[in-house]
Amino acid sequence: MKTVFAGERGSFAELAAWEYFGTGSNLQQVLLFEDVFKAVKNGRGVRGIVPIDNTRAGSVHQNYDYLVESGLHIVGELYLKISQCLIANRGVTLPKINKVYSHPHALAQCRHYLAKHPKIVLEDMSNTAAAVKKIKEEALPAAAAIASMQAAIDFDMQVLAENIQDDKENTTRFIILAPNPLEPKPADGPIKSSIVFSMKNIPGSLFKCISSFALRDIDLYKIESRPIHGQGFQYLFYLDFEGDARSEAQAHALSHLQEVTTYYRFLGSYPRGRTIVPKYVNRT
Amino acid sequence: MKTVFAGERGSFAELAAWEYFGTGSNLQQVLLFEDVFKAVKNGRGVRGIVPIDNTRAGSVHQNYDYLVESGLHIVGELYLKISQCLIANRGVTLPKINKVYSHPHALAQCRHYLAKHPKIVLEDMSNTAAAVKKIKEEALPAAAAIASMQAAIDFDMQVLAENIQDDKENTTRFIILAPNPLEPKPADGPIKSSIVFSMKNIPGSLFKCISSFALRDIDLYKIESRPIHGQGFQYLFYLDFEGDARSEAQAHALSHLQEVTTYYRFLGSYPRGRTIVPKYVNRT
Repeated sequence: MKTVFAGERGSFAELAAWEYFGTGSNLQQVLLFEDVFKAVKNGRGVRGIVPIDNTRAGSVHQNYDYLVESGLHIVGELYLKISQCLIANRGVTLPKINKVYSHPHALAQCRHYLAKHPKIVLEDMSNTAAAVKKIKEEALPAAAAIASMQAAIDFDMQVLAENIQDDKENTTRFIILAPNPLEPKPADGPIKSSIVFSMKNIPGSLFKCISSFALRDIDLYKIESRPIHGQGFQYLFYLDFEGDARSEAQAHALSHLQEVTTYYRFLGSYPRGRTIVPKYVNRT
Repeated sequence: MKTVFAGERGSFAELAAWEYFGTGSNLQQVLLFEDVFKAVKNGRGVRGIVPIDNTRAGSVHQNYDYLVESGLHIVGELYLKISQCLIANRGVTLPKINKVYSHPHALAQCRHYLAKHPKIVLEDMSNTAAAVKKIKEEALPAAAAIASMQAAIDFDMQVLAENIQDDKENTTRFIILAPNPLEPKPADGPIKSSIVFSMKNIPGSLFKCISSFALRDIDLYKIESRPIHGQGFQYLFYLDFEGDARSEAQAHALSHLQEVTTYYRFLGSYPRGRTIVPKYVNRT
């Protein structure tokens, strides 16, 4: 089995893959999320891992779209704590820093920290690992990069500060992709299921939708309406709920739900993920 | 009255402000969304305008957080169609282009278009207007920028292609901010209201929440649960619904809702916005 992720070496996607499949697992990196879906769809024995939700940024709508288009299924999940570090060459101290390089998203995540050092100039890079590589290769004595602890380890650099992102509880939910749905067993522990659907009007139909779960005491973990403009204000809904879709109550709820949906796709039933603080690995 | 927006000249936030308040209105640009909220809170006679939702990227959670923290209210909204353009110096033709400059978000929005021109190298810039400025000032003969039509007009540049973003229906919802809630009148047309709240557990309580609106035939326009990690899987909910919060049915629904919430904040009642294709202005 091979696992495909999108992102550079030392990225949070790679850390998530290690946590889920073990550091010895066979990983392949690709450029874009789209490439992950293509690889799983067209390959044999290929799984994918992509982010689907972040406590700060919300749902990754792009990956919901790819889930719908690709026909792939969710067979697992995990919640990864995100921690950004300020990384510099050895011997460099914080007061010396006058420039910080990173991806614009990582810089934005650390806005409060950076605001305390107003003299520091920010410079966008295409990815966080490239930022670390640049300051190392050019041996910059007054610059730092913002990236994961793993990137600091990979490039053998010094960490000046840890967990510097504004949201200390910043967590990303990653899902595991496979061509076919999982059929979870009782030994897998608590199960959850994910669906995507749309309805013509929200008011009465949303109530009916929620009722079909509530009347059967099925917990909801996530609900989100996403307007689809250009289609007369149709809405796409993301819903995660408790249990296996094949269980009796869940199967009834889903059958009732489909009486009011104009579009419906089952994404998968899979073991509920735990929140994990990533471990870091010395690859040398 | 002064209106504050975050973003550069020719940005979609500025276009939204023009559409809502007229091109002759008194606008002030600031760097960050946070600065908009500060200006409205601390100023007198100051309104703000910020994006809150995009069909592609979803809710702007950051601005929901600022809404909650600042105590400001929503007094209006509009939906702006987003159209990205490929912009170059006069005399430059598409086959000559080998480099495209823009903000990473704008480049990401135009991925399909750019994939059709694989020889073009992409270069990140801090904002889209800066990208147009660069190719103009350096008179680059083989480069283009991705930005709004307004940026092309402001810098007197040539538009090689329009509406090149992947999502042709890409629409951003902007909200108008003020210190005090609006008290809409019947002449304002259809009214909608926005609230933010949290509940300890989703299952039964979400059902009760939706019921309190459904039983009174109040339409819901948006519902979203956002997990707040680090607080024992509490959820924050965003809800937009039909009507004025002071109307009888709505007031009852909100009073019942608050029986099951652990946190509740009323954001505002305001006229429902229309979807607008921005008009462009020759400022010279």
